[in-house]
Amino acid sequence: MKKQGQTYFFDSPARIIGHAGVAGKKEGEGPLGKEFDVIFEDTSLGQDSYEMAESAMLHDAFIRALSNADISPQSVNAVMCGDLLDQCVGSCFALKDLEMPFIGMYGACSTMALTLCNACFYIESGVETVAVGASSHFASSERQFRFPLEYGGQRTPTAQWTVTGAGSAILQNPAVASADNLQNAPKITAVHIGTITDLGIKDANNMGAAMAPAAARTIGDFLNDTGTKPTDYDLIVTGDLGLTGTKLLYELLQKEYNIDIRKVHKDCGLMIFDLKEQDVHSGGSGCGCSASVLCSYLLNNMESGKYRKILFTATGALMSPTSCKQGHPIPGIAHSVLIEK
Amino acid sequence: MKKQGQTYFFDSPARIIGHAGVAGKKEGEGPLGKEFDVIFEDTSLGQDSYEMAESAMLHDAFIRALSNADISPQSVNAVMCGDLLDQCVGSCFALKDLEMPFIGMYGACSTMALTLCNACFYIESGVETVAVGASSHFASSERQFRFPLEYGGQRTPTAQWTVTGAGSAILQNPAVASADNLQNAPKITAVHIGTITDLGIKDANNMGAAMAPAAARTIGDFLNDTGTKPTDYDLIVTGDLGLTGTKLLYELLQKEYNIDIRKVHKDCGLMIFDLKEQDVHSGGSGCGCSASVLCSYLLNNMESGKYRKILFTATGALMSPTSCKQGHPIPGIAHSVLIEK
Repeated sequence: MKKQGQTYFFDSPARIIGHAGVAGKKEGEGPLGKEFDVIFEDTSLGQDSYEMAESAMLHDAFIRALSNADISPQSVNAVMCGDLLDQCVGSCFALKDLEMPFIGMYGACSTMALTLCNACFYIESGVETVAVGASSHFASSERQFRFPLEYGGQRTPTAQWTVTGAGSAILQNPAVASADNLQNAPKITAVHIGTITDLGIKDANNMGAAMAPAAARTIGDFLNDTGTKPTDYDLIVTGDLGLTGTKLLYELLQKEYNIDIRKVHKDCGLMIFDLKEQDVHSGGSGCGCSASVLCSYLLNNMESGKYRKILFTATGALMSPTSCKQGHPIPGIAHSVLIEK
Repeated sequence: MKKQGQTYFFDSPARIIGHAGVAGKKEGEGPLGKEFDVIFEDTSLGQDSYEMAESAMLHDAFIRALSNADISPQSVNAVMCGDLLDQCVGSCFALKDLEMPFIGMYGACSTMALTLCNACFYIESGVETVAVGASSHFASSERQFRFPLEYGGQRTPTAQWTVTGAGSAILQNPAVASADNLQNAPKITAVHIGTITDLGIKDANNMGAAMAPAAARTIGDFLNDTGTKPTDYDLIVTGDLGLTGTKLLYELLQKEYNIDIRKVHKDCGLMIFDLKEQDVHSGGSGCGCSASVLCSYLLNNMESGKYRKILFTATGALMSPTSCKQGHPIPGIAHSVLIEK
């Protein structure tokens, strides 16, 4: 393994041998509807609560990813997972019956990138197979962070719509991956672990502004660490900055790093919904946003050969309802994963 | 790296080159009072809220551990940390000003063992220096999981007292550790990542019963994987099973594995308080319990040579206030770390 700045380059890049992105009805009606492995028209998934619906959805994503990789849960050496619910119970209840060694992680909306980063170090150390994933659900998140849906609260223009979705990916050590998987599976060649960045944003309805500084820092540092420029990538994808956060990201990268990523940048929060038609204000958000987009649209298009080099940078706002009510700022974080075909 | 079952044996065991355990007033009055690096007589730590007090305490533990290891935050390649507060904000606010690449983890009371396990894979893959830690605070936890202190709720006999405490350890790759550190620092030679274990316990005031099955499974499997017996260890330490959970652990290990660990077993939740004098019912609990005991008493006594081989197994109850109110069971998890001198 080599290291430059906070960027690590792996000797044994993990292969993504299976993946699945699943989503709810509203996400299914958006521009990426055809890409998801399944769309749940009934977002309660037949469960007694939206919390359990989120777990059922995440469970489904893992089962599909395992099936896609053609391996059993018993072959997985560790599963790394997180969500937005208190005490990460979304992941716990999703995974408990699958009997895989469990590593709970929390990176808010950056969780998919966080688990991918973490898994790569396990693979580099010699671990064979790691499953990763993340989820969010609009209804459980609204209750968690704002108000139950029944309250009918109004949303501000900068507010984002928490995605009902989940993604899972199965990573394997190239030393044990089959020849077929080595041939076609995208690999993670480098990762960058982010540092908490706090510019004092306090508006809990403006996650994009809270996360943009961290995204700018991680992307800027990654490009500097690797000595690359934006056009070296097919795509630089952020997690869920939305409209407001994306504008800020462009400004910050220009001002602080003299970098312009506009030509190759997409944001999962802007890809998953049609902002004009779907009334989601500033775009999508939540762990499940970048997780479901990566594990469906992005990885599908890497496998087909449309994209060959993607810098996936998921961003997270590190706050709780309590910290916001107590008037504290919302620090952001962003982790980057370089995926190559 | 070798693997047997879910147990991993490292080629480059991480060295614990610095550590600190800090605690509150009540913990300071307990049997381990003299071992802590500092005791906060004012458990508000001069902050406006108990949540911020927890963050300040955890921040203090990290600063002391870094100082003890004689390294700066800038030398740390990644910090892995977690707590019991919603959205892990205890860790986020504790660490944001230290500017270390941040990996948020959640394992409930097992978090200290979880971060240690995780750090070892990073070190094995070639990362140089990793900081780990965990915290809990009685007053922030009561508000989080039960009722604010002002409510004056009565506690059941099986209830445990959440420890006001934090622990931090600095792990270094032997390839870069100084000769002095290599000589005297304890090392982590093996880890075992636990699997979620759910036997259907639903009593949120009986964490010990919820966690004991996971502890029995992880310890039993570890001993089988390593082909060792309890008397091969100076100590087998569990996180915070308390009185009720410890009795259950003995029963389950006997019944399911035919193993008796009584002679070498201690529980951090029973070590940190005097159950007869301190009115803590079934003992201590919380991430900060095993974190503060490991990073003070246990590691102090390894460095002095009193203990040479400790199996540290922290246990966690994977529930949230919402999941309990919705009538769901409380799955448990336990991760093991073998620390040798």
